[in-house]
Amino acid sequence: MEKEYVVGVDIGGQSTKIGVVDRRGNIVCQTVITSKYEADQGDIFLKSISDTILKLTEEVGFESIYGVGIGAPNGNYYRGTIEDAANLPWCKGKVVYLADTISSQLNGIPVTVTNDANAAAVGEMTYGAARGMKNFIMITLGTGVGSGIIVNGELVYGHDGFAGELGHTCCVRENGRVCGCGKKGCLEAYTSAIGVARTAREWLEFSKEPSLLRNIEEITSKDVYEAALEGDKIAIEVFNYTGKKLGEKFADFVSFSAPEAIVLFGGLARAGKFIMEPIREAMEANLLSIWKGKIKIIPSALKESDVAILGASALAW
Amino acid sequence: MEKEYVVGVDIGGQSTKIGVVDRRGNIVCQTVITSKYEADQGDIFLKSISDTILKLTEEVGFESIYGVGIGAPNGNYYRGTIEDAANLPWCKGKVVYLADTISSQLNGIPVTVTNDANAAAVGEMTYGAARGMKNFIMITLGTGVGSGIIVNGELVYGHDGFAGELGHTCCVRENGRVCGCGKKGCLEAYTSAIGVARTAREWLEFSKEPSLLRNIEEITSKDVYEAALEGDKIAIEVFNYTGKKLGEKFADFVSFSAPEAIVLFGGLARAGKFIMEPIREAMEANLLSIWKGKIKIIPSALKESDVAILGASALAW
Repeated sequence: MEKEYVVGVDIGGQSTKIGVVDRRGNIVCQTVITSKYEADQGDIFLKSISDTILKLTEEVGFESIYGVGIGAPNGNYYRGTIEDAANLPWCKGKVVYLADTISSQLNGIPVTVTNDANAAAVGEMTYGAARGMKNFIMITLGTGVGSGIIVNGELVYGHDGFAGELGHTCCVRENGRVCGCGKKGCLEAYTSAIGVARTAREWLEFSKEPSLLRNIEEITSKDVYEAALEGDKIAIEVFNYTGKKLGEKFADFVSFSAPEAIVLFGGLARAGKFIMEPIREAMEANLLSIWKGKIKIIPSALKESDVAILGASALAW
Repeated sequence: MEKEYVVGVDIGGQSTKIGVVDRRGNIVCQTVITSKYEADQGDIFLKSISDTILKLTEEVGFESIYGVGIGAPNGNYYRGTIEDAANLPWCKGKVVYLADTISSQLNGIPVTVTNDANAAAVGEMTYGAARGMKNFIMITLGTGVGSGIIVNGELVYGHDGFAGELGHTCCVRENGRVCGCGKKGCLEAYTSAIGVARTAREWLEFSKEPSLLRNIEEITSKDVYEAALEGDKIAIEVFNYTGKKLGEKFADFVSFSAPEAIVLFGGLARAGKFIMEPIREAMEANLLSIWKGKIKIIPSALKESDVAILGASALAW
């Protein structure tokens, strides 16, 4: 039987998505299970993943599965592990040998692990906006800022498997905001969805400008986007500032790997021209002349709801 | 006849070094020719390189040459060109097809071109401090600041062949110094030999601290080093500042490719503890916790006088 499917598993803090995907990137079937297990319940969770894969693949036949790809926070490709993931209680402060365990529970099928942003990059290269590209950088703008770097058609894993943490490069050197990682001034602290909401709150406090956002109690980045759509001055300025911070750092990233494109994925990337124009402007202003006008910035071509499974599944090919 | 030698060619603004190198990195013989040719004399210069290679390889026999590697400013690996090199009049504002021309003048022998910092990285991996490493970053601290990035045992060339311009990433965002490239705040403007001398001059002007450097008319980075050796407070502070700027950016570079080591080459790297300690301290303070204490910073293991030829020659293997 030809092995014409792969399984993609995306492990998040709350839930884990599992899907069967064909070579063209169609999700044949999918399901969701909970990720909420306590510190001593890691074994139970992994068994639940394996059992769900067995059940989900019954229809296409388990023998037609080429392999399993898993995207997870702090996923390590070299070791097939998740290591000290703060938002997964069953993996906090320890190393979980995910690939070996699940592979042995599934008759030795190949299992590949990496972090979610790396998985998204491979998904984009296999099925999405970066098809045919050999050098690009994927930036995921969500609760955090993740990245996956493709050089010569392959993910950059680095010496230890943890390369590509561009959300934790420095964008404000002096008196920068404290980031979730404990460092100060990280890109993520300014340009994640949480960073955008924080910028809005700070600016409302220090300005007297009227704003639609003043009526909202717990401002989210979505509120800022909706206010910008209404022409709200502060909301638009917040996106300008966020885009500037991203664009400035993108110019640094280009100096590193000279990518054909930077592909943006996630909630913030959907803010369209409000964010894309300031990003482009700041990047161009900071690029070496050899790269001016040559680096594309493009949004992901994958459906938001599909990308987690597609990205993880693409690892398995 | 076994092809047991390569030829390394290092093209500089003033002179071009050419040497024959064996598999262990011994320079069997070498010579120097001038690079000083006018705008319309590029052809003459290339012919002079080819003629010199033929003459130099007479002793070992031209048939024993595996290939020719060339390191040059703005050298492009993909196209085998030098492109718009400001300090080479015969290549200013134009593209010189170096590899094709020299190869055809030498019976079709393979000719590989890249920039000098990339060549140094390959030299270090082949014969020097990075032997056996698959992931490291080479930083050359000279008149400028160059870099070569090795991922999975290969140079990162990027989409266009110009990747690895880390000297032109931003280290001072607001009101940064104007760099030779025209941008503001580049790492090179602060941490090249010229940058170090400039820092010293600026600080002398704005401080009243006594300093050995006050007696020197045209301060160079070597003067600053010699003053530091004598315990000169300003000179030591200049290295602290320079090291801090480097270390802060190195932490960003680690987030990109998670290298095993950063290898330093060039005049400034020889300033020893004056520069190495502040680099390490600033890098550690800015690394994500997964990398703290794990990234080596090591000096080049190649002789300064040999590295240009060795680096270029290593490209040819």
